[in-house]
Amino acid sequence: MIKKSIRLDQGNGGKEMNVLIDKLKKFLPSSNWTHSDDDSAILKTDIGFFGLTTDSFVVDPVFFPGGNIGKIAMCGTINDLAVMGIKASAVSLGLVVEEGFPEEDLLQIMESIGDVSRKTGVPVVTGDTKVMQKGKLDKIIINTSGIGITDTILDKPLVPGDKIILSGSLGDHAIAVLSQRFDFQTSVVTDSKPLIDEVFSVKEFIKQAKDPTRGGLASALNEFAEKSGLSILIDEDSVPVKKEVRSAVELLGIDLYSLACEGRLLCVVSSEHASKVIGVLKGFNPEAAIIGEIFEDAPGSRPKVVVKTRFGKRFLPMPSGNIVPRIC
Amino acid sequence: MIKKSIRLDQGNGGKEMNVLIDKLKKFLPSSNWTHSDDDSAILKTDIGFFGLTTDSFVVDPVFFPGGNIGKIAMCGTINDLAVMGIKASAVSLGLVVEEGFPEEDLLQIMESIGDVSRKTGVPVVTGDTKVMQKGKLDKIIINTSGIGITDTILDKPLVPGDKIILSGSLGDHAIAVLSQRFDFQTSVVTDSKPLIDEVFSVKEFIKQAKDPTRGGLASALNEFAEKSGLSILIDEDSVPVKKEVRSAVELLGIDLYSLACEGRLLCVVSSEHASKVIGVLKGFNPEAAIIGEIFEDAPGSRPKVVVKTRFGKRFLPMPSGNIVPRIC
Repeated sequence: MIKKSIRLDQGNGGKEMNVLIDKLKKFLPSSNWTHSDDDSAILKTDIGFFGLTTDSFVVDPVFFPGGNIGKIAMCGTINDLAVMGIKASAVSLGLVVEEGFPEEDLLQIMESIGDVSRKTGVPVVTGDTKVMQKGKLDKIIINTSGIGITDTILDKPLVPGDKIILSGSLGDHAIAVLSQRFDFQTSVVTDSKPLIDEVFSVKEFIKQAKDPTRGGLASALNEFAEKSGLSILIDEDSVPVKKEVRSAVELLGIDLYSLACEGRLLCVVSSEHASKVIGVLKGFNPEAAIIGEIFEDAPGSRPKVVVKTRFGKRFLPMPSGNIVPRIC
Repeated sequence: MIKKSIRLDQGNGGKEMNVLIDKLKKFLPSSNWTHSDDDSAILKTDIGFFGLTTDSFVVDPVFFPGGNIGKIAMCGTINDLAVMGIKASAVSLGLVVEEGFPEEDLLQIMESIGDVSRKTGVPVVTGDTKVMQKGKLDKIIINTSGIGITDTILDKPLVPGDKIILSGSLGDHAIAVLSQRFDFQTSVVTDSKPLIDEVFSVKEFIKQAKDPTRGGLASALNEFAEKSGLSILIDEDSVPVKKEVRSAVELLGIDLYSLACEGRLLCVVSSEHASKVIGVLKGFNPEAAIIGEIFEDAPGSRPKVVVKTRFGKRFLPMPSGNIVPRIC
């Protein structure tokens, strides 16, 4: 009998990963915490909703245009709470470093972590540092976990007609990292940033939100659809994409919609609030756009994500396989 | 100019690690959270003390007599909160797995995690799963972070005469792991276990507690001494050590006091409560013993840890260098 091995595609942020995670979760007893499939787990208490989230960052290369693994680790965990409507109260930092890693690089990574901490007011309060023998780890892995509390979480029901908003252009982070990996020239830098200000400027109008990281927009939109039981129509022409990102995507032959962002807010708002929200978000980034809407499909059909292009409509499935060169 | 690289001894749980961590922490802004040098960071609030802790586990081999990396990851984080007097409310689970890792092994690790979760009632509420390319990681790294809340934390001032209690024999975990690594026979199994029951049976009597993991008893005792400004005298004959552990230590030429345990409670109690506490702890494990006491050194001398042996007294310094073959 052939023994099954863990495959690379099982960490893709898409279909295969979800199958694996479902298999792993079967071993864990249930609890009062909810939203275990979302970016943060939530516990409802008398004094508010607590959120807990965790993420391990294994980005390669460690430094890339506009940032490094430390910045995305801090922003990623802050954002996983922010998209649930929670400002992080504290973050923990688990470093696993390969023996021989340049100390200077580690200090630069810490400086980036400190920068995000200062700018957001989210403190790093505890940590853990391990060193692995040379050759047993490729450079560095950073785990950040975060906690926070809020009065209201972003978990309102979606209805047909709700608008989908993206706070900035798609795929910048992925292309910035890939430009280093494949050594091509680009002026695109990572979009990595904390999304607290964006979320809290329009929190009252957001029904649900995600940050489209691993698995990209394709994964995030399919999660919205599956959870709500409603379908989503994306207007391709409305999706903000930088020219250079589009060229790189064509050059590399990869799917734009599966590219990871590390600082984009994807949110669903009612149609009546859409223009107000987009107005505020454009203040942060003029690229912000309404990219689509929720619709009700024919009775009995599975909820799906559809992209309207100039050549007609096509399905945007949950990503599967080794989507793009893995970068986070 | 030669660039400094991260060395293996900087992850030793001893002196070099503390120097590195102090250097890294300089980049982080301060916060209202305290105890960042302890096993959990603590935030005092109107409704109690919140604790947050994180730990990344990189044990090799992944399976060893009596347990596996999943068991120690769950127990480790539960214990880091328990020694502060906090029962974990929830744990997060960050898995980073090497491509090609046997799925069966991963499921067995999850089963162990689920077992600890069920036995302790501490739920795993959120997680993250990454897969790294074959050769970029040696097998698996598990990060667990935990949160909890309590009315009283274990942080009472120590005074001369206070007793040091160890809840079971020293070094079992380290020897169980090393027996696999160096392929020698032993009946010793890991001591890995959650310490919630032990702590909460005697919590009111505990002044301070630690679980002597990386860096072992040597590291934990020196931390007590440094923090309190008082010295510690350990009576070597009182320290519970299994015969086989003692033989293995001699065979391998390593220091018993630097060996990691993963399920031993090291606590300081006032002399008047010592016999009561030891009575209760012996109910969990008959090996539990009073191993030493706090004393006040000559004025002006640095606090230190002294071991009284049959041949006289010797200092037990904070571990430094590549203490023992690294196992956690």
